[in-house]
Amino acid sequence: MQNDPFVIGGKVLNSRLFVGTGKYPDNRMIRQVVDASGAEVVTVALRRVNLSSAEENLLRFVPEHCTLLPNTSGARTAEEAVRIARLARAAGCGDWIKIEVIADQKYLLPDNEETLKATRMLVDEGFQVFPYICPELMCAKRLQEAGATAVMPLGAPIGSNRGLQTRALIQILIDELDVPVIVDAGIGAPSHATEAMEMGAGAVLLNTGISSAADPVGMAEAFGLAVRAGRLAHRSGLGATSSVANASSPLTGFLDETARA
Amino acid sequence: MQNDPFVIGGKVLNSRLFVGTGKYPDNRMIRQVVDASGAEVVTVALRRVNLSSAEENLLRFVPEHCTLLPNTSGARTAEEAVRIARLARAAGCGDWIKIEVIADQKYLLPDNEETLKATRMLVDEGFQVFPYICPELMCAKRLQEAGATAVMPLGAPIGSNRGLQTRALIQILIDELDVPVIVDAGIGAPSHATEAMEMGAGAVLLNTGISSAADPVGMAEAFGLAVRAGRLAHRSGLGATSSVANASSPLTGFLDETARA
Amino acid sequence: MQNDPFVIGGKVLNSRLFVGTGKYPDNRMIRQVVDASGAEVVTVALRRVNLSSAEENLLRFVPEHCTLLPNTSGARTAEEAVRIARLARAAGCGDWIKIEVIADQKYLLPDNEETLKATRMLVDEGFQVFPYICPELMCAKRLQEAGATAVMPLGAPIGSNRGLQTRALIQILIDELDVPVIVDAGIGAPSHATEAMEMGAGAVLLNTGISSAADPVGMAEAFGLAVRAGRLAHRSGLGATSSVANASSPLTGFLDETARA
Amino acid sequence: MQNDPFVIGGKVLNSRLFVGTGKYPDNRMIRQVVDASGAEVVTVALRRVNLSSAEENLLRFVPEHCTLLPNTSGARTAEEAVRIARLARAAGCGDWIKIEVIADQKYLLPDNEETLKATRMLVDEGFQVFPYICPELMCAKRLQEAGATAVMPLGAPIGSNRGLQTRALIQILIDELDVPVIVDAGIGAPSHATEAMEMGAGAVLLNTGISSAADPVGMAEAFGLAVRAGRLAHRSGLGATSSVANASSPLTGFLDETARA
Repeated sequence: MQNDPFVIGGKVLNSRLFVGTGKYPDNRMIRQVVDASGAEVVTVALRRVNLSSAEENLLRFVPEHCTLLPNTSGARTAEEAVRIARLARAAGCGDWIKIEVIADQKYLLPDNEETLKATRMLVDEGFQVFPYICPELMCAKRLQEAGATAVMPLGAPIGSNRGLQTRALIQILIDELDVPVIVDAGIGAPSHATEAMEMGAGAVLLNTGISSAADPVGMAEAFGLAVRAGRLAHRSGLGATSSVANASSPLTGFLDETARA
Repeated sequence: MQNDPFVIGGKVLNSRLFVGTGKYPDNRMIRQVVDASGAEVVTVALRRVNLSSAEENLLRFVPEHCTLLPNTSGARTAEEAVRIARLARAAGCGDWIKIEVIADQKYLLPDNEETLKATRMLVDEGFQVFPYICPELMCAKRLQEAGATAVMPLGAPIGSNRGLQTRALIQILIDELDVPVIVDAGIGAPSHATEAMEMGAGAVLLNTGISSAADPVGMAEAFGLAVRAGRLAHRSGLGATSSVANASSPLTGFLDETARA
Repeated sequence: MQNDPFVIGGKVLNSRLFVGTGKYPDNRMIRQVVDASGAEVVTVALRRVNLSSAEENLLRFVPEHCTLLPNTSGARTAEEAVRIARLARAAGCGDWIKIEVIADQKYLLPDNEETLKATRMLVDEGFQVFPYICPELMCAKRLQEAGATAVMPLGAPIGSNRGLQTRALIQILIDELDVPVIVDAGIGAPSHATEAMEMGAGAVLLNTGISSAADPVGMAEAFGLAVRAGRLAHRSGLGATSSVANASSPLTGFLDETARA
Repeated sequence: MQNDPFVIGGKVLNSRLFVGTGKYPDNRMIRQVVDASGAEVVTVALRRVNLSSAEENLLRFVPEHCTLLPNTSGARTAEEAVRIARLARAAGCGDWIKIEVIADQKYLLPDNEETLKATRMLVDEGFQVFPYICPELMCAKRLQEAGATAVMPLGAPIGSNRGLQTRALIQILIDELDVPVIVDAGIGAPSHATEAMEMGAGAVLLNTGISSAADPVGMAEAFGLAVRAGRLAHRSGLGATSSVANASSPLTGFLDETARA
């Protein structure tokens, strides 16, 4: 079980946990959190990358060995997302891009149609595209055909910490797609991350699950362990469930037999 | 977060995962599983401990540094459980004893009343008593008063791999008791173990979750990670859940602001 | 499907919904609620039955055709429950008695051991005994052997409106007992009541699900329909579930065939 | 609570249960099922409507007072769906049309993009359009803008009887849309239908929940009651849930006070 790298977007990763950088009271905590989690991919909202001033640049808190996954948070249309993606690449953030196109401000649900449009454009421009979507199978298949690097269905609304409320739909995506399924949004406890990985997800991305913890650094380490546990469980083949009991130990004969002994 | 030993029954443990020894095709796998899991407490059905012949003795497959937790599997009454416990101690298995009194052969549910009776007798005889129970609060409180070392409520029927189907009742036990609550039975996937630990369980005990896996040794390692993840999450304080979204990243102003930049 | 009476405790009932009388701002609403629900069994806390003054007597708000099920709410021991039961009978409330023995004031969970003790005493005195319990199979079997008329496991803590959180344990009781299982406590929405009846419960008892509604009389009618729906579904044999889809309509050939037509 | 008609698509309905006509061993059962359910809207796959021969015409088994909701089952593209819709209207099935565009044969999941396309075309042609979709908010909003009469999100794959596995997403649709949300597919037990209606669904549509029952006619009646229960519960305002108990009856003082009496 030693050798299980995650090969994606031209990189070889040792961790299947991707983390965000939002909502920390002090940006210096970002480095501690990333280090404790073991994450090698870090998502940042380009809005928060100060392109002109080194002082306040969020990027200086991201460990150097990490791959950046800039996101298009703030985009309401495919065109806005594409524009943000280009800015990110021009700013030296690399060619990975997480597409977030969100038109609803209450639940922050992704707009699958606009996301697909943006994906098509950005794949053509040579990006590694990670679209954040509502788990709809046909859209996911079209994203795959369009050349998306992975698809990122939501488990529950962003920041809600509610876990895999769309579990049934995510399982179908995992079963039916060839590209990795990276569960994003809603993962609020390590057990949610373990469950997603047990189901066969390629990775998980989360931010609030860590940043809203009483001790974010401890929680980051917990999520790192949880993702490894879930991945290893998936590879080791979970046992079947049953509706009645199955004895772990022999149940009869003990007393008679020891009496004879 | 380094220093988090589990002090119980006069021992200091580094792992909060207890494992069983049943249902392996070859007993030699037991040592590999225990080692991979990191468990320091191993439960054995005394029925399977051949008291006279070293050849077939299950115990020789249990690593030496582990604490034995013999169980009274096969007992249908308090008296039978007490008799088995005494035999276990006489056979050199130490003074820890897991009481299983089971009168129902379909679901293998514990008999709380007989278990309480056996606990009272065995505490008086100096045992460290770990009673396996249906999660009923008043019985659990009486076990605590009687001097039980921990209480072990079931998550689901033994060997069913169904997870924490009694979650609400277990949470009440955790909140209301002073002794550790060790979740036993039903834990079939690492995510179940993580969840139990997040809730504040002291430890988890499982057997079928590992033995029914395609690769039990890999699954044992997965459970070891999962228990550590859940414990660390509990100590790090899980964030609150919400019914609407909470933005991880700022959502508005991006384009305008960069336009101005 | 017309003829499905519920024969219990020497009565023939047309409704499998039992309702409580607590927490109404005005006792006059009790009659409206009972009528709207169709319930024929009404539980009252004997504490609230003013034995000396007709003015404030709760009982005058219970329709005459209903069977009273006085409960021993307030009892902390078997002895207290027995004493309340005798007072109830002496006060003319009949020989049905719901045993509530509760020692925990936070979750109001029943004390199975004391409840069993009280049941044995009251069956001997000729009562029809309805014990409220935590769903533990062996206790339920002992109650049945002791002559209980039914067993009443909780779905969730009293007044929590959380539904069937103990569903797995209740299903086992239903499958393994001969006496009716009446699900009590926690049923907060009609869908919970329907689910309990689909599982094979004999009846459901609830109070807060109705009294906490914005319109208790409308909700009482809704629960009456829900219980009938669930019972009829149980008798009609629910279809099996599957993990993939099963077409309701033919999926192929349509266009070709109509083209040929 | 008497007056609660469902005004939709130019009709005034007394029942919020829509039923299908597939998978009955004998078409004569259709009329019995529809009558027992109280449904006033019946969906039929146009493929099964023999347009030339009265002998085998499914439609003669649908009670006359019912509104037909022909569906485009079998369509894999918007164009095919549109073509089927026109055939249905030409055949005298009226101007209501349920759009099913399905490209996946394992889970029979709807294709939201093609469904939106077909909806736009058919609204322009004067149809009352009921699109069957995966519950994605932005698509649902576009369908509403396009003039759909309702949206019909799936609870679980067609015919799976698994209930509201997409519950969280459906609740968001109900909260955010002005057109009725009619839950379709996956509803396998009356409790599922009650739950959907409690959440605020406008109606539910189901077929397999009835046709796969041991006694379909009894189950049809059960679903009719369940939908009424859920709708009435929604209008009556469900009470809040709590994590601890709330006493229905006073818990203290009983014995002292009666002792004083």
